[in-house]
Amino acid sequence: MRVEIWGDVPCPWCYIGKARFEKALAGFAHRDDIEVVHRSFELEPERRPGDNVLAADIIAANYGQSLEQVRGIEEMVRGHAHGEGLPYRTEGRDQDNSFDIHRLLHLAKARGRQNELLDLVYRANFAEERSVYDPETLVALAVEAGLAESEAREVLADRTAYARAVRDDEREAAELGATGVPFFVLDRRFGVSGAQPVEVLARALEQAWQSRTVTALTPIGATAGGTGTDGAAVCDADGACEVPGAVSAQARGDR
Amino acid sequence: MRVEIWGDVPCPWCYIGKARFEKALAGFAHRDDIEVVHRSFELEPERRPGDNVLAADIIAANYGQSLEQVRGIEEMVRGHAHGEGLPYRTEGRDQDNSFDIHRLLHLAKARGRQNELLDLVYRANFAEERSVYDPETLVALAVEAGLAESEAREVLADRTAYARAVRDDEREAAELGATGVPFFVLDRRFGVSGAQPVEVLARALEQAWQSRTVTALTPIGATAGGTGTDGAAVCDADGACEVPGAVSAQARGDR
Repeated sequence: MRVEIWGDVPCPWCYIGKARFEKALAGFAHRDDIEVVHRSFELEPERRPGDNVLAADIIAANYGQSLEQVRGIEEMVRGHAHGEGLPYRTEGRDQDNSFDIHRLLHLAKARGRQNELLDLVYRANFAEERSVYDPETLVALAVEAGLAESEAREVLADRTAYARAVRDDEREAAELGATGVPFFVLDRRFGVSGAQPVEVLARALEQAWQSRTVTALTPIGATAGGTGTDGAAVCDADGACEVPGAVSAQARGDR
Repeated sequence: MRVEIWGDVPCPWCYIGKARFEKALAGFAHRDDIEVVHRSFELEPERRPGDNVLAADIIAANYGQSLEQVRGIEEMVRGHAHGEGLPYRTEGRDQDNSFDIHRLLHLAKARGRQNELLDLVYRANFAEERSVYDPETLVALAVEAGLAESEAREVLADRTAYARAVRDDEREAAELGATGVPFFVLDRRFGVSGAQPVEVLARALEQAWQSRTVTALTPIGATAGGTGTDGAAVCDADGACEVPGAVSAQARGDR
């Protein structure tokens, strides 16, 4: 089963939601059969790259609140983060266009290091008050995640590298109805929106797992050709190579 | 959308079915939004590695037919292959345990070269009468597909490398009800069994595409917090960071 998680770098609920999902997954009986993929989403796609601002100012403007009130919101979010065992220290957190970070995360995905880099980016942004929008910070995080420095620099320098992959993720999110993040999609059949409690995410895993099924557009396993001897494969005249006996197929997977 | 294709190396219908699927995909309007993944399936998991036999003998035994009749079957399959523009020349085709080839295909997948290697393996097996069960042939094909020779040799020498990945694929096939290959699964929602005609595969793509939808286990995009100014992101107190206005989200994906 595959779980896709859309998120954006400046989103504290994505940081917290990732930890909650991982707790739900750790307690899930079939956790070893779950593939997790992180996908790109930009909350502020129109922000001009380099238009670097304080996150608190954005929150204040968007909520129409004072900076004092924003500190209250941040305290509340910090409490949720601490509740998941996550460090959170963000008095001076900045915010900028996140497109390049998503491109770099796609490079990391291609190299099998996506989860490592995403954890490091969230940690730097929400716990270490490092500016993850600074290319040198990003290169350092990429290297720490196990990527080759030269390759990370090449991707950051070339605005077209993995740009298509980021936009594909975003179009898919829109097509699936997402207007915010984190957004969890299970086998493209179920969606969970927001940093829901661990129990909600655990139930979603269970429900998606229990209801795994595909609708056969053609008879699955149907053949018009001859039948084989027990356990032996037959390639019939009708477009399928068969293993007679589903038990045998099941047994294969269970070795 | 994601299409997973289960197949096995000695299966001529998998070779033909892959070509038919690719034709259907080439004619599909949303082809650039389709991710294709090839998955492992062994038709003869119990065959002892090194128990190398003529494919014709296996077919004769399984169908209870003479070698002359098997030649007739092969002629028929060859006609289907030629109909897809595929070379097919297999008088002396051999067959053996395919587990190691699947492990190597998983290495290729991790390196982004899965499709290249699979095409080369099918071609070698069905059109060039090279024994793809010979490690040196496999290394040569891996290098031709763009893999590092040393890495291909390491994976072939270590029977545990990617073994889990092969078995996971096989268990998933069994869980989805597959008893033969090729087996096409679209977004884990629809299944097509056998090397169906291009039109059937094209209709399956269309049907799966038209019915893309996720069932929301939580209200997608629902927030209890404040509302943001137009187009600006809001991280509310309720576990989600939002972009007010789905049009904006759609526009992002369309850039």
